[in-house]
Amino acid sequence: MESDLISWLRSRLPSHPLLRLGPGDDAALLRVGEGSDCVVAVDMLMDTVDFVLGEIDARRAGHKTLAVNLSDMAAMAARPLGVVVALALPRNGGLALAQSLYEGMLPLAERHQVAIAGGDTNSWDGPLVISVTVIGAVPESGVLLRDGAQPGDRIVVTGTFGGSILGHHLDFEPRVDEALLLNERYKVHACIDASDSLAVDLNHIAVESRLGAVVQTAAIPTSKAAHELAETAGDGRTALEHALEDGEDFELILAVPPVEAAKMLDEQPLDVSLSDIGRFVEKRGLWQSNADGNTSELAPRGYEHRLEP
Amino acid sequence: MESDLISWLRSRLPSHPLLRLGPGDDAALLRVGEGSDCVVAVDMLMDTVDFVLGEIDARRAGHKTLAVNLSDMAAMAARPLGVVVALALPRNGGLALAQSLYEGMLPLAERHQVAIAGGDTNSWDGPLVISVTVIGAVPESGVLLRDGAQPGDRIVVTGTFGGSILGHHLDFEPRVDEALLLNERYKVHACIDASDSLAVDLNHIAVESRLGAVVQTAAIPTSKAAHELAETAGDGRTALEHALEDGEDFELILAVPPVEAAKMLDEQPLDVSLSDIGRFVEKRGLWQSNADGNTSELAPRGYEHRLEP
Repeated sequence: MESDLISWLRSRLPSHPLLRLGPGDDAALLRVGEGSDCVVAVDMLMDTVDFVLGEIDARRAGHKTLAVNLSDMAAMAARPLGVVVALALPRNGGLALAQSLYEGMLPLAERHQVAIAGGDTNSWDGPLVISVTVIGAVPESGVLLRDGAQPGDRIVVTGTFGGSILGHHLDFEPRVDEALLLNERYKVHACIDASDSLAVDLNHIAVESRLGAVVQTAAIPTSKAAHELAETAGDGRTALEHALEDGEDFELILAVPPVEAAKMLDEQPLDVSLSDIGRFVEKRGLWQSNADGNTSELAPRGYEHRLEP
Repeated sequence: MESDLISWLRSRLPSHPLLRLGPGDDAALLRVGEGSDCVVAVDMLMDTVDFVLGEIDARRAGHKTLAVNLSDMAAMAARPLGVVVALALPRNGGLALAQSLYEGMLPLAERHQVAIAGGDTNSWDGPLVISVTVIGAVPESGVLLRDGAQPGDRIVVTGTFGGSILGHHLDFEPRVDEALLLNERYKVHACIDASDSLAVDLNHIAVESRLGAVVQTAAIPTSKAAHELAETAGDGRTALEHALEDGEDFELILAVPPVEAAKMLDEQPLDVSLSDIGRFVEKRGLWQSNADGNTSELAPRGYEHRLEP
């Protein structure tokens, strides 16, 4: 698993005076000038794994790759400034493909005022690989990490969950402005973007904060796509299961002190809905509290980055 | 060709207030804070293209990928601060491979005091792809670009050229400290690292500076490997041809005003030799001046990043 590699890296990498935050969160913090830190994240997407080029317009693959990176900035409540793009292109039609990928990135970059600063472009006999690195600025209110949740904090989420595979995973809009606004206007203790699944990423906050989390399953905002999958896929998985376990929703999961959470929920300051779906607790583990009042353990199922030894 | 994509990008990308230098040089310049710019470069290397994993210790692939990136910083005379690493690993043995790659990067990172800040790790059914993004600082004397050469400037190079394929391309030490020292102690107008070939990269400085360049072929420092290849490869290519046309020497090519060049050559301030191999001239094009006094056109042959439309 990727977490094995991260644990190994955390023990193996020497500390560095300029590295304010190393591997393990959604992005790293690097000091680049007198009192000036930048936020850095990289995501690599591969044809056949993260999208299937033969089945979609390549511009959607470009959009997705940039959006996933910007979502890492959102997870930190950082302001993205610029990106560099590295491409391994199939030999045949490489130039046209590269142009389509960039055409897919440009509108998103413009909406978020992100500079496309340059890149590296290669050809090979393999499938398309595209790696984007984003550099962001620390906002005045500071970045949000995974490890800051406190017992009693409410679990607040943006948007709806589940069924991303029906299209949202390609076309989503990263919650950059939403994260900046929430962090500026309210007290928030921790944040992550739901990339692996609501359950897995909520568990990341809990584990890094040395806490547990109890989810009110009835309060989870399930997407239309989650319901659609539940009805049509025929595998017996409910809309709730899709919402908890599907990957690539790229919504925000926040740990918010109760008073602030109440204020947030009351004010609903975003174009997208905010929902309170539970709370962080002292008792380690991930739990679900059902409508009938019973609490049971909740498995953090979702997308797993499994590395074989 | 990659240059087609770069031309297209230069025309297609909107200008951005934070982007001080966009696509086309060895790295980009991005404003990240009040009066504080960072230098960013990315290089992606692929198994079967840039190295053959089945034939080498994977640590050498890790070393090479980081070294190529640090060489981009050297080309700008920038000080590298930190890197992020993105991996697409073959499913089988992915964790062990990732560890070897990092083990190959660590000693080089430590020698240059570069922080390994984090990354993204994936598995797939394709060959290894590794992308490193490096973030650096602008030194007090400013960065060196490709477009600053002046007519009459001497062409000064570090080290020796040719035959890198015999091993140097995997194990080279990027000229980071050398570039920083030269830029700090002498007046230098332009700089590039020789990645595609001495001829191609010299031509990059000439073209970007809207000048020509005349190379004194007898003055080109040819490597032992260039001579070895000339003797053993049996393809009739001379050591000089290898020195001019082989890729991945990762030596520096500098445009230096004559008086400063004379001082540099006299003082030889580096552990590696500095050689004066010719001069930049008004007349566009790339020329070679041979020992017999004749001047003829020199083709900028080397590694070509060809993208098929």
